[in-house]
Amino acid sequence: MDDKIFTEYESDVRSYCRKWPVIFDKAKGSILETVDGKQYIDFFDGAGALNYGHNNDYVKERVIDYLKNDEIIHSLDMYTKAKLDFIDSFENKILKPRGLNYKIQFPGPTGTNANEAAFKLARKYKGRSNIFALMGCFHGMTIGSLALTTDKSGREGAGVPLVGVTHIPAPYMFDTIKYIRTILEDDHSGIEKPAAIALETVQAEGGIYVFSEEFLQEIRKICDEYDILLIVDDIQVGCSRTGTFFSFERAGIVPDIVTMSKSIGAYGLPFAITLFKPELDCWTPGEHNGTFRGNNLAFVAAKAGIEITLNEHVEDEAKRKGKIIKEYLDNEIKPLLDEIEIRGIGMIWGIDVKTGSKAKAIVDKCFEKGLIIERAGRDDSVVKIMPQLLIDDETLLKGLTIIKDAIKENI
Amino acid sequence: MDDKIFTEYESDVRSYCRKWPVIFDKAKGSILETVDGKQYIDFFDGAGALNYGHNNDYVKERVIDYLKNDEIIHSLDMYTKAKLDFIDSFENKILKPRGLNYKIQFPGPTGTNANEAAFKLARKYKGRSNIFALMGCFHGMTIGSLALTTDKSGREGAGVPLVGVTHIPAPYMFDTIKYIRTILEDDHSGIEKPAAIALETVQAEGGIYVFSEEFLQEIRKICDEYDILLIVDDIQVGCSRTGTFFSFERAGIVPDIVTMSKSIGAYGLPFAITLFKPELDCWTPGEHNGTFRGNNLAFVAAKAGIEITLNEHVEDEAKRKGKIIKEYLDNEIKPLLDEIEIRGIGMIWGIDVKTGSKAKAIVDKCFEKGLIIERAGRDDSVVKIMPQLLIDDETLLKGLTIIKDAIKENI
Amino acid sequence: MDDKIFTEYESDVRSYCRKWPVIFDKAKGSILETVDGKQYIDFFDGAGALNYGHNNDYVKERVIDYLKNDEIIHSLDMYTKAKLDFIDSFENKILKPRGLNYKIQFPGPTGTNANEAAFKLARKYKGRSNIFALMGCFHGMTIGSLALTTDKSGREGAGVPLVGVTHIPAPYMFDTIKYIRTILEDDHSGIEKPAAIALETVQAEGGIYVFSEEFLQEIRKICDEYDILLIVDDIQVGCSRTGTFFSFERAGIVPDIVTMSKSIGAYGLPFAITLFKPELDCWTPGEHNGTFRGNNLAFVAAKAGIEITLNEHVEDEAKRKGKIIKEYLDNEIKPLLDEIEIRGIGMIWGIDVKTGSKAKAIVDKCFEKGLIIERAGRDDSVVKIMPQLLIDDETLLKGLTIIKDAIKENI
Amino acid sequence: MDDKIFTEYESDVRSYCRKWPVIFDKAKGSILETVDGKQYIDFFDGAGALNYGHNNDYVKERVIDYLKNDEIIHSLDMYTKAKLDFIDSFENKILKPRGLNYKIQFPGPTGTNANEAAFKLARKYKGRSNIFALMGCFHGMTIGSLALTTDKSGREGAGVPLVGVTHIPAPYMFDTIKYIRTILEDDHSGIEKPAAIALETVQAEGGIYVFSEEFLQEIRKICDEYDILLIVDDIQVGCSRTGTFFSFERAGIVPDIVTMSKSIGAYGLPFAITLFKPELDCWTPGEHNGTFRGNNLAFVAAKAGIEITLNEHVEDEAKRKGKIIKEYLDNEIKPLLDEIEIRGIGMIWGIDVKTGSKAKAIVDKCFEKGLIIERAGRDDSVVKIMPQLLIDDETLLKGLTIIKDAIKENI
Repeated sequence: MDDKIFTEYESDVRSYCRKWPVIFDKAKGSILETVDGKQYIDFFDGAGALNYGHNNDYVKERVIDYLKNDEIIHSLDMYTKAKLDFIDSFENKILKPRGLNYKIQFPGPTGTNANEAAFKLARKYKGRSNIFALMGCFHGMTIGSLALTTDKSGREGAGVPLVGVTHIPAPYMFDTIKYIRTILEDDHSGIEKPAAIALETVQAEGGIYVFSEEFLQEIRKICDEYDILLIVDDIQVGCSRTGTFFSFERAGIVPDIVTMSKSIGAYGLPFAITLFKPELDCWTPGEHNGTFRGNNLAFVAAKAGIEITLNEHVEDEAKRKGKIIKEYLDNEIKPLLDEIEIRGIGMIWGIDVKTGSKAKAIVDKCFEKGLIIERAGRDDSVVKIMPQLLIDDETLLKGLTIIKDAIKENI
Repeated sequence: MDDKIFTEYESDVRSYCRKWPVIFDKAKGSILETVDGKQYIDFFDGAGALNYGHNNDYVKERVIDYLKNDEIIHSLDMYTKAKLDFIDSFENKILKPRGLNYKIQFPGPTGTNANEAAFKLARKYKGRSNIFALMGCFHGMTIGSLALTTDKSGREGAGVPLVGVTHIPAPYMFDTIKYIRTILEDDHSGIEKPAAIALETVQAEGGIYVFSEEFLQEIRKICDEYDILLIVDDIQVGCSRTGTFFSFERAGIVPDIVTMSKSIGAYGLPFAITLFKPELDCWTPGEHNGTFRGNNLAFVAAKAGIEITLNEHVEDEAKRKGKIIKEYLDNEIKPLLDEIEIRGIGMIWGIDVKTGSKAKAIVDKCFEKGLIIERAGRDDSVVKIMPQLLIDDETLLKGLTIIKDAIKENI
Repeated sequence: MDDKIFTEYESDVRSYCRKWPVIFDKAKGSILETVDGKQYIDFFDGAGALNYGHNNDYVKERVIDYLKNDEIIHSLDMYTKAKLDFIDSFENKILKPRGLNYKIQFPGPTGTNANEAAFKLARKYKGRSNIFALMGCFHGMTIGSLALTTDKSGREGAGVPLVGVTHIPAPYMFDTIKYIRTILEDDHSGIEKPAAIALETVQAEGGIYVFSEEFLQEIRKICDEYDILLIVDDIQVGCSRTGTFFSFERAGIVPDIVTMSKSIGAYGLPFAITLFKPELDCWTPGEHNGTFRGNNLAFVAAKAGIEITLNEHVEDEAKRKGKIIKEYLDNEIKPLLDEIEIRGIGMIWGIDVKTGSKAKAIVDKCFEKGLIIERAGRDDSVVKIMPQLLIDDETLLKGLTIIKDAIKENI
Repeated sequence: MDDKIFTEYESDVRSYCRKWPVIFDKAKGSILETVDGKQYIDFFDGAGALNYGHNNDYVKERVIDYLKNDEIIHSLDMYTKAKLDFIDSFENKILKPRGLNYKIQFPGPTGTNANEAAFKLARKYKGRSNIFALMGCFHGMTIGSLALTTDKSGREGAGVPLVGVTHIPAPYMFDTIKYIRTILEDDHSGIEKPAAIALETVQAEGGIYVFSEEFLQEIRKICDEYDILLIVDDIQVGCSRTGTFFSFERAGIVPDIVTMSKSIGAYGLPFAITLFKPELDCWTPGEHNGTFRGNNLAFVAAKAGIEITLNEHVEDEAKRKGKIIKEYLDNEIKPLLDEIEIRGIGMIWGIDVKTGSKAKAIVDKCFEKGLIIERAGRDDSVVKIMPQLLIDDETLLKGLTIIKDAIKENI
């Protein structure tokens, strides 16, 4: 089966297919299979949308049952039983046990939509238009989110000025805390006080930079002192990826607004939520909307995802396997090359080989050897390890070994 | 079953549920059913996302099979068999027979995302940042689309200046063609030449205003003369809603860019595509992206939707039933009240009762009588009739009769 | 004396010198004289800054005396005797007799600065960022003013997006009143309610379009009804140019904010003022400033200008000579060519010959014949007649005859 | 004579008069005199516009002669003898001897206008809209300049979003050079490459911060490496204020664009110029303009100012007296209080007393004792010493002694 249909009819904007030019058909757990029957281990994980693996049976069963019963699929923001069950589960099984009190908005089923809603709400609530974003961040590609996103080529495609955002150097670049305090205190900084500071606790697209607990606590403190909202974008590293359901739990902080997407849909179904403290809920009815904000199949899958999280102790699993990865990287990979930098937490790790061309050679070689793995970060110089959380140890090690071999062959 | 879970935990932004405060569970064809077993005829159609009815069996079977086979669900822009089959079907069964030559972009699975991609592409291709939008239009709620959308309360929620758009009076307000020509010719209009003119051929949210064939042809002519792209947003009225698959076919014009969502997903699954003439494809890989741009379940459903369109002669059905609706409105509804204005085409119609309060009374009464129907337009004064296209004649008439009775009781 | 110094060292941005490539040295009343002793009648009037003629003796004497006495020249916004005398004179001799009650701001000594101050104040007072400007308007070239100015080449030089302004078709293009009412009433126009409507009562740069009294009254009415401020930019046609000191007096309206510059300085000295109703004065000290806002020589000259206005009955003179011009244009010029359109009021008139090239040929010929006169309007197709108000009848007729001859030679 | 006329009729925006609530009338050299005959030493210098003192006789004589001869006063950008003489003098007596090759633009007679022209030109030439400005800078109050200016209250008065500028921490805040290099190199900084870096070599309004020669050289180097223009705003500290005619001479760098105003007019007459390397001159005729760009009285005065500069060795005088000031501040003032910080160069100095209230008490006391002196900087905590450059040593010391006494009385 050839790819002529794609090269002829699909826009040149397509990108992952260029790295892995095969046609996939089946998928299960950590294994992807092409139409020709070739199998690949998946360390890419649908860009973080498949934390419970491809076609997880527990979710699958519930989704198929729902379809078979002719329960409602599409409902905008009408009340449905599937939505009620999801909310009930999320509030009582995820939020309450963690002492969190958030209202839920269903803003449309993509991460960028959840962020656009978050930014609108923050600006409306505080009556200020500025938002602080950290250099290296990624928050989406629609214009409201793209204004924060720092990826150069993405920004150049905007076509309109990207306004309402001040970019702040990340803590691995400068002393972020001192920087923010300085410009907020200075009556001649030229920087408008923001409605919110938005961040990912782990910058994934930026190159797998894990922000320290102390840093996150200091940011929370600044927000409290200066009457600024804290928005955590947990779209990529939420849902237990870092070892706790919410990535910010390790720092003991409570953001004012949290956005989730990707794995919250549990089965790769489009889904996103925006969470916020009840007192922030200043929306008027329909002020932000979108046709697919009532994707009931995703409600069903998301509820199943919560159940998996609890039943299979996914957080602990992520922690345990995170250690395996870390040890492998430290002991087997790091020694291979002096300039290599290893960064990560839980089950998201980066091997920074410092140049994009070197990283490309490595991931290309991995693909040859049967591993799907992508690059991230500045100059795309970081090999990004992000297996599904329920991967078995054997497959995990098999994948890591492929990386090691690929690096060795490219030294 | 009560709605406490929703009122306590779901954001106040929720809106349709306020109009129809019941909890839905099952849905089939044109019928919605609550958890308590109460049934409603659906003239709302998931805001146009369910042109083939709720839980259409033909689609359902293919979706369930796909799930059962563990075929890949989530794939970003990797190549998959399901995507290949969709593209093949769409190009060869929809575009080619209509003499259309478009490349397809999968921009993320929501209408606003398809529009954001369209606007970015137009601006990049032409190297101009301005876009003309028509007063009364709706193109979505993320900041890039919201800049065009004219709905006042939506715009007020933006929180940042909405730039890069000039709003042009619609043809039912002023002489749009003369207006555009005047400002393009005038070296003192203050209006920047746009990259594109964007429009819906039928303004749905604006109040069901159908643009004449002549008007659409004149706009196409202006675009050709002045080197401006024509973008048709066919998100709500595409997929045979007006009697032809693309709504612009009746005017014999070919837009440069077309955006589709809602019913293109066929089953209420999130899906959207941006179509454009091949020569416009100036995207660099990944320049616009989004996690859920490879929603394979939607590819499968969308392909089934194309097959339904052809096998069940949906376009003809929409035309035939459109006449039934028109006649009913002209003969049974129009005579009820002098000030009523009837507007529509195919299977999208509006009864403009001139005040929002009157329209509200009518749709509330409809709900009481077992009909789900929404309002649209200025001051929400238009009762909007949008049944699924495969509705049987009996149910259609039953619904129309409810409207008639509701109006009579509110005179 | 040649112009090499200019062509070598002065920026290519220079413009009038290209039309009249001679070097001027002396000037008196309506006569300009080059370094070589060649004299020209001046129908250009320093772009409206010299309503009392070049080097008016009454002003000159006071300015020289002030200099001789070593009174303070430059004072920012410190209190000075010269400023006190100007304010006193302007309030008591100009405003009070006309029943006008305005506070005065000295915003920096250029027209664009007066407008920038006006727009800032209006936006701050109303808490809205939008301003309505009329197509064809000119309000200056700094970014805040340029956002309103409609001249295409000027706008293209901005280099940044020009925001916060909606351009409204002028009454000679569409029904402006109906247009404004429509978009203000429409909750789907996409147009934000403005803080102010800004206009010139006679669009000079736009092509000498005189707005009718009825139109001005209707605009005032709209402003009152919708809680919008009315800003009149009287920079070019104030100071008796149209036959009354303020150009809006003929319509019996009172703007909320008025900006003046050019001839308010009386002697060609840089000067500008922003007038507004006392209740609008929400400025904090220094919130808008500029080094040369205390140009005392201009205070002295401006006070002298007020005295000339009263002593020499300048308003009546402008009216009387306006009639002479009008009659000449109607009787001697209009008959020369069918397509000619004559527009004007008081002592500002335009002969619209419909193409820029024709107008250029005419003004070039005028220059050859000893008359300085410029073009304006769309495509620069309007020959703009704007003599100083104290011109003697003989010189006036001499100038008009040159125009007539120039046209005849270019038919 | 009371100030009722002002408090009743002048806008509340007035500011300096609140600090020195007397009415001035005469002025000579360094002495201001009120209508009541009270004299003050002037250490404020018209905010830097009077480097050769009030009503300098050499200039005065030429200005009066010019007026008496009825030479042309107001000429927009027509060629005039006065303008020719100024250009000739400036090019041959100022630029050539310094090895500088700049074309001159006359952009309108205020500093902000010169800056608006500079920013437009830089953006047009480079085809980029961003400009880097340093925190603490002041470049004017019209919207294009205000976008750079960092003063908080000034920015809050804008009323529209201030776009096209990135604010960079000043070298006294962070390592500016490292910061700029980092964000320019980083493909995820979110910061657009700028058309220009704009700066004052001494931030006056920011609090009298003198940038080191090394810093200025590093900035020049960055501009060269990254193809960015360097704009030096020499409006306040040009014209020999720092000891050289242009303030950047001490660093041996050549900016691409230089803006001048204030003392370039020599007599307090409104005047401004924008200088740039000839190859940057991409203006089309009239693309930036302004009515008062041909203020011939200022041409005459400016030429006289150049002659004074040379004849009276003003640069040397500024250096010599700068040392006197520095020694006095170091020896007499610094010891008074531990927290005092002394900063300055040439004849611009700041005594940073760290709180605005303390600085206010000092300058108020100075006024009581007969000295006009203002505050600047963050929280207005810096007492700003800026006498005219031709002040005699005795008056200079008298003024300094008043400051010393005022501080002593406020400890």
